[in-house]
Amino acid sequence: MSSSGVILKAGILGATGTVGQRFISLLSKHPFFTIHVIGASSRSAGKEYSKVAKWKMTTTLPAEVGDMVIQECKPELFVECDVIFSGLDSDVAGEIETSFLKADLVVFSNAKNHRRDPVVPLIVPTVNPSHFNLIPHQRSLHSLRKGFIVTNANCSTTGLVVALKPLQDAFGPIEAVIVQTMQAISGAGYPGVASLDIFDNVIPFISGEEEKMEYETLKILGDVNETATGFNMLSFTKVSAYCNRVPVIDGHTECVSIKFKNRPPPSVEQVTQALDSYVSESQLIGCYSAPKKSIIVTADQDRPQPRLDRDNGDGYSVTVGRVRECNVLDVKFTLLVHNTILGAAGSGILNAEIALAKGLLKVES
Amino acid sequence: MSSSGVILKAGILGATGTVGQRFISLLSKHPFFTIHVIGASSRSAGKEYSKVAKWKMTTTLPAEVGDMVIQECKPELFVECDVIFSGLDSDVAGEIETSFLKADLVVFSNAKNHRRDPVVPLIVPTVNPSHFNLIPHQRSLHSLRKGFIVTNANCSTTGLVVALKPLQDAFGPIEAVIVQTMQAISGAGYPGVASLDIFDNVIPFISGEEEKMEYETLKILGDVNETATGFNMLSFTKVSAYCNRVPVIDGHTECVSIKFKNRPPPSVEQVTQALDSYVSESQLIGCYSAPKKSIIVTADQDRPQPRLDRDNGDGYSVTVGRVRECNVLDVKFTLLVHNTILGAAGSGILNAEIALAKGLLKVES
Amino acid sequence: MSSSGVILKAGILGATGTVGQRFISLLSKHPFFTIHVIGASSRSAGKEYSKVAKWKMTTTLPAEVGDMVIQECKPELFVECDVIFSGLDSDVAGEIETSFLKADLVVFSNAKNHRRDPVVPLIVPTVNPSHFNLIPHQRSLHSLRKGFIVTNANCSTTGLVVALKPLQDAFGPIEAVIVQTMQAISGAGYPGVASLDIFDNVIPFISGEEEKMEYETLKILGDVNETATGFNMLSFTKVSAYCNRVPVIDGHTECVSIKFKNRPPPSVEQVTQALDSYVSESQLIGCYSAPKKSIIVTADQDRPQPRLDRDNGDGYSVTVGRVRECNVLDVKFTLLVHNTILGAAGSGILNAEIALAKGLLKVES
Amino acid sequence: MSSSGVILKAGILGATGTVGQRFISLLSKHPFFTIHVIGASSRSAGKEYSKVAKWKMTTTLPAEVGDMVIQECKPELFVECDVIFSGLDSDVAGEIETSFLKADLVVFSNAKNHRRDPVVPLIVPTVNPSHFNLIPHQRSLHSLRKGFIVTNANCSTTGLVVALKPLQDAFGPIEAVIVQTMQAISGAGYPGVASLDIFDNVIPFISGEEEKMEYETLKILGDVNETATGFNMLSFTKVSAYCNRVPVIDGHTECVSIKFKNRPPPSVEQVTQALDSYVSESQLIGCYSAPKKSIIVTADQDRPQPRLDRDNGDGYSVTVGRVRECNVLDVKFTLLVHNTILGAAGSGILNAEIALAKGLLKVES
Repeated sequence: MSSSGVILKAGILGATGTVGQRFISLLSKHPFFTIHVIGASSRSAGKEYSKVAKWKMTTTLPAEVGDMVIQECKPELFVECDVIFSGLDSDVAGEIETSFLKADLVVFSNAKNHRRDPVVPLIVPTVNPSHFNLIPHQRSLHSLRKGFIVTNANCSTTGLVVALKPLQDAFGPIEAVIVQTMQAISGAGYPGVASLDIFDNVIPFISGEEEKMEYETLKILGDVNETATGFNMLSFTKVSAYCNRVPVIDGHTECVSIKFKNRPPPSVEQVTQALDSYVSESQLIGCYSAPKKSIIVTADQDRPQPRLDRDNGDGYSVTVGRVRECNVLDVKFTLLVHNTILGAAGSGILNAEIALAKGLLKVES
Repeated sequence: MSSSGVILKAGILGATGTVGQRFISLLSKHPFFTIHVIGASSRSAGKEYSKVAKWKMTTTLPAEVGDMVIQECKPELFVECDVIFSGLDSDVAGEIETSFLKADLVVFSNAKNHRRDPVVPLIVPTVNPSHFNLIPHQRSLHSLRKGFIVTNANCSTTGLVVALKPLQDAFGPIEAVIVQTMQAISGAGYPGVASLDIFDNVIPFISGEEEKMEYETLKILGDVNETATGFNMLSFTKVSAYCNRVPVIDGHTECVSIKFKNRPPPSVEQVTQALDSYVSESQLIGCYSAPKKSIIVTADQDRPQPRLDRDNGDGYSVTVGRVRECNVLDVKFTLLVHNTILGAAGSGILNAEIALAKGLLKVES
Repeated sequence: MSSSGVILKAGILGATGTVGQRFISLLSKHPFFTIHVIGASSRSAGKEYSKVAKWKMTTTLPAEVGDMVIQECKPELFVECDVIFSGLDSDVAGEIETSFLKADLVVFSNAKNHRRDPVVPLIVPTVNPSHFNLIPHQRSLHSLRKGFIVTNANCSTTGLVVALKPLQDAFGPIEAVIVQTMQAISGAGYPGVASLDIFDNVIPFISGEEEKMEYETLKILGDVNETATGFNMLSFTKVSAYCNRVPVIDGHTECVSIKFKNRPPPSVEQVTQALDSYVSESQLIGCYSAPKKSIIVTADQDRPQPRLDRDNGDGYSVTVGRVRECNVLDVKFTLLVHNTILGAAGSGILNAEIALAKGLLKVES
Repeated sequence: MSSSGVILKAGILGATGTVGQRFISLLSKHPFFTIHVIGASSRSAGKEYSKVAKWKMTTTLPAEVGDMVIQECKPELFVECDVIFSGLDSDVAGEIETSFLKADLVVFSNAKNHRRDPVVPLIVPTVNPSHFNLIPHQRSLHSLRKGFIVTNANCSTTGLVVALKPLQDAFGPIEAVIVQTMQAISGAGYPGVASLDIFDNVIPFISGEEEKMEYETLKILGDVNETATGFNMLSFTKVSAYCNRVPVIDGHTECVSIKFKNRPPPSVEQVTQALDSYVSESQLIGCYSAPKKSIIVTADQDRPQPRLDRDNGDGYSVTVGRVRECNVLDVKFTLLVHNTILGAAGSGILNAEIALAKGLLKVES
């Protein structure tokens, strides 16, 4: 039960995929979201989940979900849902999510399709919940009473902006960011990366990923305009990304160099302090899934490491280490984000918790 | 036989280690270096190689080497050797190699100990063989008739400078380099990295490695001074490195961003062309082990990849891909170097071939 | 708190090693064992745990343990402990554990040293808790008031005997067992297996492992003699083992073929039923760590798999799949055991819970 | 050129797949088979090989093959070929290969489709080339002048029968074989095994694989009947197989226990000696690709290992180690076979060399 005593009915779109499975895994233990409807492709619809889904989580498939019958992803089958989490693939997400929005439903999407929409907030829950302020305008534009759509960010972008946010807050505009990722295979879904491609190997390319990091960072770290009708993207900051796939199951590691506008730049100690003391709004308003610390700064010189640190804060914390001077820009560090929790399904859930706290979920009590 | 018909006797120091094994593997197929003496610690000395060494190469241990008796690493036991290749660990390499030098022997060392010595050339064979010009001064300083010592570079530095050299040659001074590595486990020797540390993991730290890249690059890409008595290190260029260990057996992948001094900077096409058309001196003078191309530029957007490209040019080529603009510096690309061939033992051997071609090996015929 | 309301003080020997770290990880969440003293080598003694131990668990080091000062492994420093869990390496475990026994302390050891001792029970908690019946004799022999020593089994043996136990119970003597293991790297401790040895590889040999499986199975599946002064090992059963190391972090997979003495042998269905319905004494007496099912039989033809099934029953269940006829012996199947939980530290803890339930721990209340 | 001075034109079916790529890789270095036509699906036909195939070999794609235009797999396009190597998938191989046979072409197939055909030899080149004796009957049955079809065996079966053959020859009938495999991912083709399925994991099931091992072994180790019109499969021998997928790129490891009919069984020394001294007919008749030793017996207790031993004999040798007594059957050992060389494409090529030597290839000179 939420603090207000409400139980919310959740729908899941794309429930058989890897993001969908993660939604199931997280929601089945959630105190006030209950899984009410699960949707997948028409090929799977009408069948019991356990008969169709190839369950790949390391935790057991919850029996009550295994017994549920999969529905087609049609809004009329989800009308009872207070929130809908979409783990749909981008090749179908755009159209389906739009149809749900038009049906006045609340959609938290992990897909990329609506991220660049000028009236769709792109929210990393431990970074920019203020972007929910655009929802009234979005509703008004689409003549909605209670529905809206919010997207979470690309998994690699998510880790990056969590670390940049407190630095921008504390030290002013960031002029330049160079980020290089080492991304886990789970980021590619299932079957995703062929084992013959990634065993004993690195793939120095992930289609569209660098562009996402270079764009989404500017939207997330920007703000809602004065009339709450659009976003002011960062225009000053330049981001350069290299995205690599490495033989790791979960957890994206990122090497980041940044340059501040203000001279002299903050010292390594000041940067470390700003990261370590960061408290996100999701923590302040007491969201259930918010981590104790949005950023964990590790003093060990050989951390963060994906296998040992990805579950920090139950996958909702970003771990930062090796903060030091950069010979070329100002400061550099290494960060780690759990790509399928904070970097995907977890962001959707925590975003929904924030929306509830902000009174955006109009739940019949 | 070399082109001049000579056969040279080679000694190997540290013959049981991973670099030593690579020396054996490469030299046993070499047309004019023959393995004459193999040295290791006093613990192994006096025993047959095959009885003591835990052979870890994927090729079979050459029978004639397996039968050789290991010697202690004392100069008097190597006096018949025309060249000596040192794969010694840095904790013993300094002293032993110095004793060999004093005994007027020719040492090609893979160890870091003498790399910062102001009269010891640090040579990547496809980059700066001109640094051999300091040898007369080194000999004179140590009163040597035929001996000298040359070191090859750190494995990650090696890949980087091969790519930077033609760009510096073509477009003038490089102002800044940001490089992030994804390094193979074989770079740490044997037993090296524990499997529990690197399975399903990335280790974002390699002790001393970033400092090596940031220093060695400046020495290698600098030049010999006018009096041939020292090196002019690059003073203008700033290098910032992050070194990571990834679950790959052989082959270091590096993401590189560079900024040129001259404005406007060269275009992506010009950079690509300069890399692709680069011919190193080792190729020009026809060294046996010199690759057909010192740099292979790949057009595939998802290459280079360590498993598929590390053996390009039999491990002596550096493969470069994804040349493109950098939003922060000028241009960026990804490169791959075989860390135990060009990045270690192979550099020593190709350096020795260059020295022979330059008349620096005074071989009795 | 235990059902009787008692809190027991636990000591850990070898607390910095991988088994010791697992003991810490499991005990720090335990309701009635509290970590009271931690011991390690004299090199670490006197220092704070967090300063000395290289923590390798994927869960965070409990802060209260991190602050504890490590003690030397001397009995006088552990006299307040109600139970002592030993994760010591076998090169020191024999002598130290004996000194603890002589000091009238209660030792649950994971080391191999005392497993073949004719008066030391070798207990897999979900298989043969009846072997605790020998403790009075052991105490009497060593003139102990409350102390005793019990060992748990080798990790691979543990998985095997859990599956064999219900079959022996239901269908009578087993004539022959052929078992082939695919063992995780964590079984070798830390640093353990070098990454260069096991990446892209299988090592078809683990020193002493096959002998352990072939011996320990016979002791565990045997019984305590009538006078409760020794063990009747199985004399009829022949076990043949091959032990292989594979690139898996946790979880030993084992392919097993068995032949029964009685003709006709049980059918595949009967065997499946016997496995599936097995209830161990540890479950019956309500031990806290006892799994809901000691054996989970999976119907999926491609399970059990270590990554997906090792945490079944929080690591205390053995998962069995692919039960089918064997063309050579009678029946064959594949099983999976978590090698560092049920196969090591977890067995020690569950054994201690059983001992408590049986009144063997004389705790001051 | 072959010893008889002939150059043979080779066609490759399924040239873009992993087996097809291996055929290209092996044939491009072959002295007397030249790649003349390459065939693939109609989707790829008409395009240059380098434009269509995703080349996954670690050696460079031979330029002359990269430039070849892919043909549809129709017999009329391959009429100039002296031999045709089929790396087709089993879902299309049956029909296509039959059409090639009817067109009087010579087909060496790696597919499973015709392996159980009573007039199609199933030949492992270092085991049973005598099965070529059935070709006259096959030709007569199908009214062929020069065409015929021969299949090679399943990759795991191949390794097993190479080791069993000399033992059956030396010590008489084998009563029982229990074999457990640890198979490389390359055996599943491309994309094949998803990385999320096999990282940090073992999959204890490979569809149809156990049945193949249990059947094919009996056909290969049987002989041609007296009238050379069919095969006498072994009827006495029982084979029980477990097939597992492990995280290894190339090389299948197999643990084998065998029981002989004759009592007393041979000693471990006799078995070792028989394996070590085995010379296959392919060696005796001097085939180009025949390894120096069909079986390499290693004395190292921790070998064979796939990464270190799969390339023994250029992938045509089977490596056997750890020969020892079995507590249940008579003797046990571990073997390794390169699954895509001797276990697939290499068998086809060596079979063709044998056929040439036996005069079965009616080449126009």
